[in-house]
Amino acid sequence: MTQTDFHGVFPYVISPVRASGDVDAEVLARLCDDLIGAGVHGLTPLGSTGEFAYLSWPQRRRVVEVVLEAAKGRVPVVAGVGSTTIADAVSQAREFEHMGCNGILAILEAYFPLTDDGVFAYFKAIADTVALPVVLYTNPNFQRADLSLPVIDRLSHIPNIGYIKDASSNTGRLLSIINRVEGRMQVFAASAHIPACVMLIGGVGWMAGPACVAPRQSVELYELCRRGDWAPAMERQRPLWRLNQAFAKYNLAACIKGGLQLQGYPVGDPLPPQAPLSPEGVDEVQRALVAIGAL
Amino acid sequence: MTQTDFHGVFPYVISPVRASGDVDAEVLARLCDDLIGAGVHGLTPLGSTGEFAYLSWPQRRRVVEVVLEAAKGRVPVVAGVGSTTIADAVSQAREFEHMGCNGILAILEAYFPLTDDGVFAYFKAIADTVALPVVLYTNPNFQRADLSLPVIDRLSHIPNIGYIKDASSNTGRLLSIINRVEGRMQVFAASAHIPACVMLIGGVGWMAGPACVAPRQSVELYELCRRGDWAPAMERQRPLWRLNQAFAKYNLAACIKGGLQLQGYPVGDPLPPQAPLSPEGVDEVQRALVAIGAL
Amino acid sequence: MTQTDFHGVFPYVISPVRASGDVDAEVLARLCDDLIGAGVHGLTPLGSTGEFAYLSWPQRRRVVEVVLEAAKGRVPVVAGVGSTTIADAVSQAREFEHMGCNGILAILEAYFPLTDDGVFAYFKAIADTVALPVVLYTNPNFQRADLSLPVIDRLSHIPNIGYIKDASSNTGRLLSIINRVEGRMQVFAASAHIPACVMLIGGVGWMAGPACVAPRQSVELYELCRRGDWAPAMERQRPLWRLNQAFAKYNLAACIKGGLQLQGYPVGDPLPPQAPLSPEGVDEVQRALVAIGAL
Amino acid sequence: MTQTDFHGVFPYVISPVRASGDVDAEVLARLCDDLIGAGVHGLTPLGSTGEFAYLSWPQRRRVVEVVLEAAKGRVPVVAGVGSTTIADAVSQAREFEHMGCNGILAILEAYFPLTDDGVFAYFKAIADTVALPVVLYTNPNFQRADLSLPVIDRLSHIPNIGYIKDASSNTGRLLSIINRVEGRMQVFAASAHIPACVMLIGGVGWMAGPACVAPRQSVELYELCRRGDWAPAMERQRPLWRLNQAFAKYNLAACIKGGLQLQGYPVGDPLPPQAPLSPEGVDEVQRALVAIGAL
Repeated sequence: MTQTDFHGVFPYVISPVRASGDVDAEVLARLCDDLIGAGVHGLTPLGSTGEFAYLSWPQRRRVVEVVLEAAKGRVPVVAGVGSTTIADAVSQAREFEHMGCNGILAILEAYFPLTDDGVFAYFKAIADTVALPVVLYTNPNFQRADLSLPVIDRLSHIPNIGYIKDASSNTGRLLSIINRVEGRMQVFAASAHIPACVMLIGGVGWMAGPACVAPRQSVELYELCRRGDWAPAMERQRPLWRLNQAFAKYNLAACIKGGLQLQGYPVGDPLPPQAPLSPEGVDEVQRALVAIGAL
Repeated sequence: MTQTDFHGVFPYVISPVRASGDVDAEVLARLCDDLIGAGVHGLTPLGSTGEFAYLSWPQRRRVVEVVLEAAKGRVPVVAGVGSTTIADAVSQAREFEHMGCNGILAILEAYFPLTDDGVFAYFKAIADTVALPVVLYTNPNFQRADLSLPVIDRLSHIPNIGYIKDASSNTGRLLSIINRVEGRMQVFAASAHIPACVMLIGGVGWMAGPACVAPRQSVELYELCRRGDWAPAMERQRPLWRLNQAFAKYNLAACIKGGLQLQGYPVGDPLPPQAPLSPEGVDEVQRALVAIGAL
Repeated sequence: MTQTDFHGVFPYVISPVRASGDVDAEVLARLCDDLIGAGVHGLTPLGSTGEFAYLSWPQRRRVVEVVLEAAKGRVPVVAGVGSTTIADAVSQAREFEHMGCNGILAILEAYFPLTDDGVFAYFKAIADTVALPVVLYTNPNFQRADLSLPVIDRLSHIPNIGYIKDASSNTGRLLSIINRVEGRMQVFAASAHIPACVMLIGGVGWMAGPACVAPRQSVELYELCRRGDWAPAMERQRPLWRLNQAFAKYNLAACIKGGLQLQGYPVGDPLPPQAPLSPEGVDEVQRALVAIGAL
Repeated sequence: MTQTDFHGVFPYVISPVRASGDVDAEVLARLCDDLIGAGVHGLTPLGSTGEFAYLSWPQRRRVVEVVLEAAKGRVPVVAGVGSTTIADAVSQAREFEHMGCNGILAILEAYFPLTDDGVFAYFKAIADTVALPVVLYTNPNFQRADLSLPVIDRLSHIPNIGYIKDASSNTGRLLSIINRVEGRMQVFAASAHIPACVMLIGGVGWMAGPACVAPRQSVELYELCRRGDWAPAMERQRPLWRLNQAFAKYNLAACIKGGLQLQGYPVGDPLPPQAPLSPEGVDEVQRALVAIGAL
């Protein structure tokens, strides 16, 4: 099933939404086009930076549609499916497959705590629904249901669950996962991990918001890591990390949208009641971008 | 504006949803009718026990519609509005007012942390949208954005924000709120507080899931507290608390739905991937219900 | 064994330590004498407000010695024993019994998490060592090892473990304990609970730092609760709660020491690197004390 | 001042204590001798694995004495100083310097939360007391007071504070520290980090319990990292990580003591009420040790 080979830099694409509630297709398409031009290996709309948790289904659908049209098949599009119920998640996944997405990023939301069996059932149902490769997403900071190692192991035996993106800040957990799944699943880093470290231990790339504002630098870092040129990789990694550090301090979506505005993309602010990036935040992001030549 | 006087026992009505996704109007209407018959002072659909976080908008709308029809104006219906965005929350509130609800229970969901100003803006927007009394809902256990005392104080100056329901387990916080808002807002307890204690310190009642399965006993306790008959009140309170204790141990919705099934209401299970009440849970709930004469 | 009947207001006595490391016996003795004169029912040196965690064994021993001499048997002295090891705790308890204490407040410190069996073994070893009544202390905010309901139940069957003081802010947990131990253990409130609420549900008093600066008001509140005069009790409770609220905001020891200095007791500051009460803190404590007539 | 150059593998030496309370000097000396024989670069008694939080001052003093005698100056001995008060910490540090230690590992314990100024004052006081190099220790999992980036920055300007050991599991935080202190301080990893990753980003070694049971393998890994042979380094790292994973699951001291017993060192169990390593734990540690050739 999984002949696909997802690897490299997949920016978590932001979702520009006008005050009217309409998705701003023009700026979103231009951003996607520029990201592909800069060499990114895939696009991931509707991740956490993509504010999936703040968008209605029609808005989510429209974002994916615009990204697919902009990508024109040049890079894989892995769309985020996120819900509290199996029924809703399955319906989202089916539609994204039908629209032509190349993979599903599966996100579990929860209000009440879940048992491991409930967590397993959710992800299995998504994988059973589509013929596409599925990327498990786990984020203990923002979600109430985390994926335990035993559940990850069970899920790794489902053929089209081929990837996991772990957004904890615990890099050791990634090596534990890699040791445990013995190649049945590949690991992507998130913005809370140092990409070079994750590549060193066996990761295949990263899916993260900051790649939206530093796509060329991210791809260069990836290529150096891929070739095992660790000394020059670390020279690039060090200043790039300041960017991730800034993003960890502020609302992720506000940060990336703020950074993109500095770069000339009128993507607007995160959906209210989220606040726009604060003046200090703008200042910190600006300095980080200048330091890596992204502004 | 607030000539309304919400007080007493407001059960958090469960949401019975069939496998097809349809709301089971028949059992829901019967439950509401029986609750009113048992003397409850109001009905609150779409609270946390009502699984608002697991329902689509059409399902939420239908639940409220059925509850309103069943209530026939005999008791106030205070419907839960919950969202991550102001736009969506305002749209829900407007529709519930239009449908004939008597009040709004305002719930804030969040994915990224919010500033106090963002929290304030969310609740203010809902209050500005409707002419109905608004009940603030705060639940630090299941939500990522909590209401700080200063924000609660600011919100208490908005005329139609007349109530707050705090679902922390910190009863002292309720007295801090009561001291702070100086009568501008009334306090309802939640299932994590001992109702008799909240009544003692000045609360006006409680909004909670357990009242669905023990409406008569809850109303009796309320009346004793209201009259200041604290010794007999505590005699009732003690065994009733075992019920709340059981509910705190399990998924709230699973518990109440499990208890209602024992009482002959075929309300089904919580929406997957939530698990039904476990056999031990059924056993514990059954014993608690028998002990208070509710089975 | 437990013919003793601890009940009422037990101030958590502060520990005045000079820069030289010597305990200031004079001010400590005067404070104890004044507290007894104000009607408190017992004295508890070496609780959390007593900075047990900051004192060497000679300092702890001296504090207890001074309190015992000042009490002259007029009220029971229940001294805090706190350690990470059984060996050390047992040695402290033995010495305090030998010195003439009337009870032991048993505090468990932990660095690594413990199993329930380890927690049980710690408290059982203390109870087995002394013939005195033992008060279990549990404080989930400042300790790494909490007492679960099943462990509390097991411990309640040890004859001389007659009391528990729970310093969570979860008042419902106290009723769960009361329901569970069926009279084998009595419950004291802590400063995080509303004393009137704990008395209502069956508590026998409170052990808390704020009683050091408001002994008379605390005793009056206790007497009203004891007689079941709940309306006047709540009239006293409301302004007294502002004091507890202030104490919850700042370092407990700094607050009580700050308050006592305002009242003319030169008790000094908490041991460094703890900070003295901040100017805003002094201001807030002062206003709270004035409001209840304690300044 | 800091001509010293601490780097490489510093095992967190365990503290063998007999039921009588005496330190077992014989087995401790033998272990230290064997560790040095296996090539470790230093010894760190009284870290968390060394159960500093469970030992009396005479026991702590004796442990350090035995380690110093066993080391005979062949490798630096960096002893752990840990307390809640400045007075006690300063007294410990002074004595360890006088006894001949080569460095101080400074650990802050806290019961009440501290301000950044209090945290700074504690570490500065230790550094001011001794002429030795000081290693800051930070462990957000087991301590109530964490070192913020701004405090670390301030402390890095004190000449003899030359190192930091961060025991969070957040590897990105280490790179943030390295970026921030600009060479004024060197970074050691802890057992929660993947050593190879920390070496890649610029760390100088690791101080950790697992090195007690895998000293030779740890030193080999260190040498490969130091030379930049990252591919063979990762081949060693992968199975070694299983050991750290086991240690993270159980009480650290129980684990290392259990592992050492399997290797023929009769070091006993952790101090009660801590539990010995469970049978499953023994089994897991045994398999991990066999897999790396350490048993």
